[in-house]
Amino acid sequence: MGNQVIVVVSAMSDETDRLLDLASEVMSLPPSREQDAIAATGEQICASLMAITLESLGCPAKSFIGLQLPIITDQNHTRARIIRVGTDVLRKTLNDGIIPVIAGFQGISEEGSITTLGRGGSDTTAVAISATIEADCCEINTDVDGVYTADPGICPRARHIEKISYQEMLELAGLGAKVLHSRSVELAQKYQVKLVVKSSFGGDKKTWIVNEEEIMENSIIKGVTLEKNVSKISLIRVPDRPGIAYHILSPLADASINVDMIIQNASIDGYADFTFTIPTTDLKKTEKLISRVADEIGALEMLADNNIVKVSAVGIGIKTNPGVAARMFQTLADENINIEMISTSEYRISCVVESKYGELAVRAVHNAFGLDEGQPDTSGES
Amino acid sequence: MGNQVIVVVSAMSDETDRLLDLASEVMSLPPSREQDAIAATGEQICASLMAITLESLGCPAKSFIGLQLPIITDQNHTRARIIRVGTDVLRKTLNDGIIPVIAGFQGISEEGSITTLGRGGSDTTAVAISATIEADCCEINTDVDGVYTADPGICPRARHIEKISYQEMLELAGLGAKVLHSRSVELAQKYQVKLVVKSSFGGDKKTWIVNEEEIMENSIIKGVTLEKNVSKISLIRVPDRPGIAYHILSPLADASINVDMIIQNASIDGYADFTFTIPTTDLKKTEKLISRVADEIGALEMLADNNIVKVSAVGIGIKTNPGVAARMFQTLADENINIEMISTSEYRISCVVESKYGELAVRAVHNAFGLDEGQPDTSGES
Repeated sequence: MGNQVIVVVSAMSDETDRLLDLASEVMSLPPSREQDAIAATGEQICASLMAITLESLGCPAKSFIGLQLPIITDQNHTRARIIRVGTDVLRKTLNDGIIPVIAGFQGISEEGSITTLGRGGSDTTAVAISATIEADCCEINTDVDGVYTADPGICPRARHIEKISYQEMLELAGLGAKVLHSRSVELAQKYQVKLVVKSSFGGDKKTWIVNEEEIMENSIIKGVTLEKNVSKISLIRVPDRPGIAYHILSPLADASINVDMIIQNASIDGYADFTFTIPTTDLKKTEKLISRVADEIGALEMLADNNIVKVSAVGIGIKTNPGVAARMFQTLADENINIEMISTSEYRISCVVESKYGELAVRAVHNAFGLDEGQPDTSGES
Repeated sequence: MGNQVIVVVSAMSDETDRLLDLASEVMSLPPSREQDAIAATGEQICASLMAITLESLGCPAKSFIGLQLPIITDQNHTRARIIRVGTDVLRKTLNDGIIPVIAGFQGISEEGSITTLGRGGSDTTAVAISATIEADCCEINTDVDGVYTADPGICPRARHIEKISYQEMLELAGLGAKVLHSRSVELAQKYQVKLVVKSSFGGDKKTWIVNEEEIMENSIIKGVTLEKNVSKISLIRVPDRPGIAYHILSPLADASINVDMIIQNASIDGYADFTFTIPTTDLKKTEKLISRVADEIGALEMLADNNIVKVSAVGIGIKTNPGVAARMFQTLADENINIEMISTSEYRISCVVESKYGELAVRAVHNAFGLDEGQPDTSGES
């Protein structure tokens, strides 16, 4: 008696881009409903090819697209959210001894249109199905063999992590560790789905993503990340009056630009400097919006800087260990790296530094918290 | 107030073959259920691209796949037959002033699998929808501008036909006039759907396919066709006993080989010769099956001949004009063309001749029945 297995597939590499290019050749901004109907075929083809592969190995298998289960989503084409997953077809197929192979990334809206889930969509499908069917675990087979304490390309002594909590993984994912999209981790946490990340190319390594409580003795810091897609906008000599932050930032919210760190220095003579970070991909749009705001509010000038990166230490131990931030700042100071901005949360300390120091900062912090391969293992993992 | 329009599309040229090749790269005989799920994406993509094109021209449009209407079919994957077409989605979409663009060639079985309809599938989808929704007419836009009295490539004086009956069209389609698949014409006849064939590339010409009664004065012969995919098998000195034809032909029926003309000559001394034609594409398989049968029944020998073609005259007038067959035989004799086999039906007279005479035979018969461009118009069309 092995396990009953459900497979969720994503499209073949670059196929989704190829399909969306077809649509935009016809019309520069095609209706999102049709974009979705086209893009969804990438996973449909892959699901059938996977079912055929399983059949050729002697495992009975059947492919299903989102409509067939159904996977019901809201109407937000190209970034729909799953409302519920039908289980009748899945259970019947499993009970017939057949492996259901599900086209990920897609669903159907309640009014009957094909939708897609946006970035990280196939992982999200897998987690949603796992949650609904109460699977023992949800295995993500991807191009890496799990989560590391830092990007091994930057930090050669990075260590593989065997167990990490949802919350830590969310901080890492949000900061650009490209293993799993935050969305699927959030969903897994909400429905208590055990996630395990493995490499599609084989090997024994894997990373479990579980509840904090299931990690008996956790290390203070779980990993160190480097985020490059970050730029800084400063407004100099802003009249310091109530509602000014809202006035500055609301045009960005309206334009769906994600403001990350925000700093306002102490007011001198009724004026303050106001600084925040945004993704560099939104820099042009932000400069345009904020230069207009600067005129309106009578700021002295606007400065933009995309020559920065964000280095973050992530770990559950941060909230209970007050000395962690100090140790990080000390480490950067020892390397003569100037910290331009700081932000902290329960699980994370982030420092903005000049781009050229980014990789050095990661290695130094990684070493300072005892994460280097060969250092005494303080991770507490069994 | 123009017309309300529903569009049915087929896949882009060669796309279906590309998709099926993907499947057979994985497994030489992939499960037909998965072949269908993969092949159906070709029309899905095309339907969305067509909807986008219509939108870009200012016409609101929405694409739908077979599942979404739904188009319910039987379970025969790769050659499913339509059972019924749901109309709620279509009527709602039309009433909203939106053009429904339907992915042809596909449906969904009652147990919920994606099916495809096989050859001529998108035309069949269009006719089935027209029948269900009681459309005023069903326009087939294809790569030719209608039906001709003969293939203009063979017979330069072939005339365009303005109106033809379902029954005549069926005979022409079955004989290899590649304008419409027989299946869609049969369905149109059954449900009295007016068909009109036009060129996708524009032009004023079109051919109406309607009831016999709607063609006031019909010509005796509507067209002359040449069928090249035909081979002849002869069994010499077959013991002439009851059930012998069944014994010879049943293995072919079991192998889904379509036997067309069958001739058994008069018995001499209890022995007869037995000759029949089959598609040349099935010749190898047929020779193998029939050489075994020849041994079993004690025939003297088996002869195979693929150096033949079938020339046919088609027209409603044949059944009421006894002299038509005689005129055709006389015409071929005048050209010194030997007739190897003959078969007739209410609407058709076919003669098998040696391949090299095929095109000459078409031109001679075409002229003999007054069909040449410039001859007095006897077609009776308004």
